[in-house]
Amino acid sequence: MAKTDGRGITPQSEDFSAWYNELVVRAELADHGPVRGTMVIRPYGYRIWELLSGELDRLIKASGHENAYFPLFIPESHLRREAEHVEGFSPELAIVTHAGGEELEEPLVVRPTSETVVGEMYARWIDSYRDLPVKINQWANVVRWELRPRLFLRTTEFLWQEGHTAHATEQDAVAEMMVAADFYRELAEDFAAMPVLVGDKTPSERFAGAVRTVSLEAMMRDGRALQAATSHYLGTNFARAFGIDYTGIDGVRTFCHTSSWGMSTRMVGGVIMTHGDDRGLVLPPKIAPYQVVIVPIGKEAELGPVSAAADALAAELTDKGVRVTVDSRAHVSAGFKFNEWELRGVPVRIELGPRDLAAGTVVVVDRLTGVKTPVAAAAAAPTMPARLDGFQRVLFEQARKFRDSRSVRVDTLDQLVEAVATGFAYAFICEDPACEKKVQERTGATPRCVPADGPDESGPCVVCGGASGYGRRLVFGRAY
Amino acid sequence: MAKTDGRGITPQSEDFSAWYNELVVRAELADHGPVRGTMVIRPYGYRIWELLSGELDRLIKASGHENAYFPLFIPESHLRREAEHVEGFSPELAIVTHAGGEELEEPLVVRPTSETVVGEMYARWIDSYRDLPVKINQWANVVRWELRPRLFLRTTEFLWQEGHTAHATEQDAVAEMMVAADFYRELAEDFAAMPVLVGDKTPSERFAGAVRTVSLEAMMRDGRALQAATSHYLGTNFARAFGIDYTGIDGVRTFCHTSSWGMSTRMVGGVIMTHGDDRGLVLPPKIAPYQVVIVPIGKEAELGPVSAAADALAAELTDKGVRVTVDSRAHVSAGFKFNEWELRGVPVRIELGPRDLAAGTVVVVDRLTGVKTPVAAAAAAPTMPARLDGFQRVLFEQARKFRDSRSVRVDTLDQLVEAVATGFAYAFICEDPACEKKVQERTGATPRCVPADGPDESGPCVVCGGASGYGRRLVFGRAY
Repeated sequence: MAKTDGRGITPQSEDFSAWYNELVVRAELADHGPVRGTMVIRPYGYRIWELLSGELDRLIKASGHENAYFPLFIPESHLRREAEHVEGFSPELAIVTHAGGEELEEPLVVRPTSETVVGEMYARWIDSYRDLPVKINQWANVVRWELRPRLFLRTTEFLWQEGHTAHATEQDAVAEMMVAADFYRELAEDFAAMPVLVGDKTPSERFAGAVRTVSLEAMMRDGRALQAATSHYLGTNFARAFGIDYTGIDGVRTFCHTSSWGMSTRMVGGVIMTHGDDRGLVLPPKIAPYQVVIVPIGKEAELGPVSAAADALAAELTDKGVRVTVDSRAHVSAGFKFNEWELRGVPVRIELGPRDLAAGTVVVVDRLTGVKTPVAAAAAAPTMPARLDGFQRVLFEQARKFRDSRSVRVDTLDQLVEAVATGFAYAFICEDPACEKKVQERTGATPRCVPADGPDESGPCVVCGGASGYGRRLVFGRAY
Repeated sequence: MAKTDGRGITPQSEDFSAWYNELVVRAELADHGPVRGTMVIRPYGYRIWELLSGELDRLIKASGHENAYFPLFIPESHLRREAEHVEGFSPELAIVTHAGGEELEEPLVVRPTSETVVGEMYARWIDSYRDLPVKINQWANVVRWELRPRLFLRTTEFLWQEGHTAHATEQDAVAEMMVAADFYRELAEDFAAMPVLVGDKTPSERFAGAVRTVSLEAMMRDGRALQAATSHYLGTNFARAFGIDYTGIDGVRTFCHTSSWGMSTRMVGGVIMTHGDDRGLVLPPKIAPYQVVIVPIGKEAELGPVSAAADALAAELTDKGVRVTVDSRAHVSAGFKFNEWELRGVPVRIELGPRDLAAGTVVVVDRLTGVKTPVAAAAAAPTMPARLDGFQRVLFEQARKFRDSRSVRVDTLDQLVEAVATGFAYAFICEDPACEKKVQERTGATPRCVPADGPDESGPCVVCGGASGYGRRLVFGRAY
């Protein structure tokens, strides 16, 4: 149970960052581990992760992937085989130098991602075109040393899934990258109620070692961007570095084209910052540990029949497939419970007191609006699935409207500067990385992606005035 | 697909160890990782783990536990707080000394188990008797440096779940230890079809830091024991080391009693060695990735209608909740497929050729007996769930009979020596650890457990002739 102490949390408008940090701990989503930058995911936060990852696992398997598990430790020399890759990850690595009471001959890297160890194994397993495609996913922990850690968003260790596939052709591997981006979009929008922009990264923002990186970008309630997931086409870079090749029907030995894609516990941070308000968390019903909380109300003497009715209603809701809990704690007040479950973001609260019981009604309270609706007790459970679906839709629509209201098409750098202070700017930019860098130096904003569904357009680069690249406006934003 | 090369595997009777090592790799259950002692769990092996862990997760949640996640890295100084614990694990630790490009001020231990980091957090979270019990489980990887690694059985990194609970009283914590032992027994016997002996470890075989350890011991087909899971009552040892205490109803500050319990990927090794035979793996249907394989048979010209019938039958079986695959590979022979799916332990094979199609029958082949039964095509799917249940029961019974046939009550050390050469010996022993040690030095066998359901008995210690301890005979065996 959350130890709410009666005090509220810092309002979003006052200090969004403080709001987030307080909420994560107070709602018992996560806590700081003993080692700086590490995170303990508490049961309430972990359940959200289980619901998210369970849905994603279903989508991954339904599209023909199998799960497997690759080792945590990678020989340092293996990581060095793909030059860009090692350059990108070197500053973030944790290194094991001693094990079993002895100094190791070769230090081991704690995986920051698994392309290299997967590459090594794929080279061993793949021999013929008949072995392709190989489509494997793993659920694992990875370690990237973070200088400015924040719970869920940047932790030195995080949980994720990483898909790794090998294909005969570029076409197949690029298609696979898009399949992954598609199920991430489905997860983000249909389950996390988090609208996302999907599109390619510019070269300077790509994954270390990738030929193409597609990312999903969401807007948080402070107007900043959060990269919710990424999917990469790796070309033959890793195939060449690790010798992943196959004999084709024509008998010719050819390098595979590979892809990789990942979604992490960072998504939980995204859910918090997409939907939360000054009273706390607001959870999309599809990933809420409890979709409904029932609070029996009344003095001790009256509580027997009220509690019995609450339990009966809970059983009825469970039958309808609703995740429900009854808060029957005797040592805290109803008001305390209301605040606590609002802080913890439960979509619907049902209040049930002696007068409701006598009238054959319950009071249904919506976490988003706070509106209290008396409902016939017999109708509460049968109507709940539709009510939760409605809540889920409203949450998505609200987030989409918020994002759109803070997204601006801009044609000058000054306009861009103003736009990214509170949201996203759609702007033309040329393909010279120096212009991206100038935007970043002045505003902290980076091109988040080349939105796949943006209109084909061109115009002068907001920085240098030269011809724009990428065939359309890019989305700029300050990112988490 | 397994690359069977026509050669069989080494027979169990010739070299059990070679049989195991070959089978694990040839059946594509697992492979060796680039770092010595690490394991890659391939999709077929990982699916078995998913089915096992999914069932266990269900049992864990149904008994009121919640999942959470604790960090991989533990400050070295924390591990030292519980003296016996650190002594037990020190030789097996992997140590991170560098991270983020710098040498760390304090080295970090890669968790060998999580009592210490959990203890640290529980001390922070638990304050009042109202906070108790805390019943948390985590699914995680742990690292123990192994000198003689073997896939699934002893790998430097393995996957497991570890439950950690805190209670107000000894009675509650001991009851919890038994609850965990109970769901492990259910998992082993009802899902893995692996009969287990459950009972306390002697003091010298206990978990480092535990007051009591209950283990589940199974017999492998070479007569050796495999510890399938353990459950520990930790007394107040970790509570004192980490300050896990609470204020009782009486206002008095009291230390919690804690428990911990774990089951790992080693269980997959146990399944292989409990049921496998000279033709390969035999999988219990409840944890088989495929319960049925359909092999369409015929020359290319005839194959169209046969394949269509195979696909239709597969759809019918899927409808009945059966996990089924159709092996429609064109470039390998039916005989090759039969061998391969036998090697991979699929419980039931269905052969379907043009003559079967004409006769309206299919041939159902049992992996255990090899018996081929013609079955009316229309009856194949409806009867399959019962057939698989029967297979599961026979597998358990066969394993139980095998174990019982190799279990002997012995009254002298010579008899014990003979018995543990091929199986288990039930013998009296005194409580002096020196006598256990003498048994081990002479035979390699250790007391596996004090079987909880053994009859109350006493008699002379097989080593020193003194009065026996533990109130009954202990099970001795040579262990994996």
